[in-house]
Amino acid sequence: MPGVLASWNDGGARRAIVEFVERTVSDGVPAEERVAVFDNDGTLWCEKPMPIQADFILRRLDEMAQADSGLRSRQPWKAAYERDYGWLGAVLAEHYAGDDTNVRTLAAGILAAYEGISVDDFEAQSDAFLRSAQHPTLGRGYLECAYAPMVELLGYLEENGFSNYIVSGGGRDFMRPISQEVYGIPRERVIGSSSALDYTSDDHGGTITHRAEADYLDDGPQKPIRIWSRTGRRPLLAAGNSNGDIPMLEFTRHRDRPYLRLLVLHDDDEREFAYTSGAERALERAGTNGWTVVSVKNDWATVF
Amino acid sequence: MPGVLASWNDGGARRAIVEFVERTVSDGVPAEERVAVFDNDGTLWCEKPMPIQADFILRRLDEMAQADSGLRSRQPWKAAYERDYGWLGAVLAEHYAGDDTNVRTLAAGILAAYEGISVDDFEAQSDAFLRSAQHPTLGRGYLECAYAPMVELLGYLEENGFSNYIVSGGGRDFMRPISQEVYGIPRERVIGSSSALDYTSDDHGGTITHRAEADYLDDGPQKPIRIWSRTGRRPLLAAGNSNGDIPMLEFTRHRDRPYLRLLVLHDDDEREFAYTSGAERALERAGTNGWTVVSVKNDWATVF
Repeated sequence: MPGVLASWNDGGARRAIVEFVERTVSDGVPAEERVAVFDNDGTLWCEKPMPIQADFILRRLDEMAQADSGLRSRQPWKAAYERDYGWLGAVLAEHYAGDDTNVRTLAAGILAAYEGISVDDFEAQSDAFLRSAQHPTLGRGYLECAYAPMVELLGYLEENGFSNYIVSGGGRDFMRPISQEVYGIPRERVIGSSSALDYTSDDHGGTITHRAEADYLDDGPQKPIRIWSRTGRRPLLAAGNSNGDIPMLEFTRHRDRPYLRLLVLHDDDEREFAYTSGAERALERAGTNGWTVVSVKNDWATVF
Repeated sequence: MPGVLASWNDGGARRAIVEFVERTVSDGVPAEERVAVFDNDGTLWCEKPMPIQADFILRRLDEMAQADSGLRSRQPWKAAYERDYGWLGAVLAEHYAGDDTNVRTLAAGILAAYEGISVDDFEAQSDAFLRSAQHPTLGRGYLECAYAPMVELLGYLEENGFSNYIVSGGGRDFMRPISQEVYGIPRERVIGSSSALDYTSDDHGGTITHRAEADYLDDGPQKPIRIWSRTGRRPLLAAGNSNGDIPMLEFTRHRDRPYLRLLVLHDDDEREFAYTSGAERALERAGTNGWTVVSVKNDWATVF
């Protein structure tokens, strides 16, 4: 199939994808069962030097610390105010290693930062940020930080009758305003973490606002649970890049249907970033379970 | 438009629906914004003498009480074992009147009844029940208890580019196996109550099981919250029949788009059931807020 997945180099990953899709079609798997799920940060778009949403949140925390000096000595406002991005990086590394002590401190700050905001205002802020902010080192806007081969893969799947879903540890409502434009994924197919929400009755249709607590963190074992809750199905294809994606990849398995598990390996520090931190166990599982490793360096003809 | 909504009598409700749909189309409202949400029990299918899922649950509770005599003196097993359907009716009436004391007793029993079951086994049980059990008085199987005019409305909306969702206080996973067949609504568009779920890793793709606690009860103010969480949109059309639907109907309002709120009034004890219990406040709000009341007796040419 000339032209298909042109931004992928010929190799094991590209071949595994094409074989999987062709088998799904030739087996006549019903369209409604063709569900594909994608982690976002590090799988569909760049997550280094920090996840894009972290930049968004740090700006908000800094703004709060600018306005209230009492916050400047408390984490996570302190890190935001002092631009101590190392603190945030360490928190995420601890999380992927299984220690969530500082994640709770960070989460409490994040939740407090948006307490009481309406979902409409939150979306407007996220939308404005994503359309204007620049990646700190890649010299491109954040909306241009999606991986071209993955966007191409989403399109290839859609052409073959698949429904693609984002299943991100990041905020569902953070990604929704741009998911259609960047990935061709409509907002109702964005699964991600969320604050608990309140509904308040009023004269103009009611308002939904954020509470200062998490509804759930869509990571690790929550990913298959949220996929089931949203779709009522076990996916045929899953793509991830970190330890938090292991249960979702594991859940993508069938007795009588084709299935494919993709794990993006960040091994290209010339065109993107090279790191395996937070992905150690996932890479190990890829080896023992036959998941398909996608090497940024070798499998992608272009990155962005 | 001859043939459109043929099972509806000509009248205010039918005219309001046709006008709303035609305006949505002539205004060129983008297809992705055409979201319609429907309560299930009492709106899409019959909920008397008790909700269909209550019959399913009572059979399971009775089965447990048959197996364990110690349960026979405890509610809700006592009511199930003694076929005391009055107790259940009273619990629901109390709930709609704002008193949830016995709802908690009932909920704890229901949750205990399915603790540890896999979502696949739960679905198989629900599917088997819905395809075999008979309505106690209407002389028809439960799958034939959907209201023909509402099924016709769902089809009319779909033909006009709408995405229909079920937004039920009942169990999401209870309705999913039959939603496509009965309503033409795919399983990923079923929003409803759910147990909290666990994911357990294993060698054949992992298993999702029910915990003995609720994730949330999709009723009252949770309905707009769950609609937003699932779709990321404010619907254009909502249909309900009880006080628990008030926030969802209220939420269906726009400044610059057509919108329609339908409230089904059960006033036909010849062809179905006549009751307003649990709908008193909703009917009052319909009057003051201009919601469209759908009279079963006057607006529907056929009921089933």
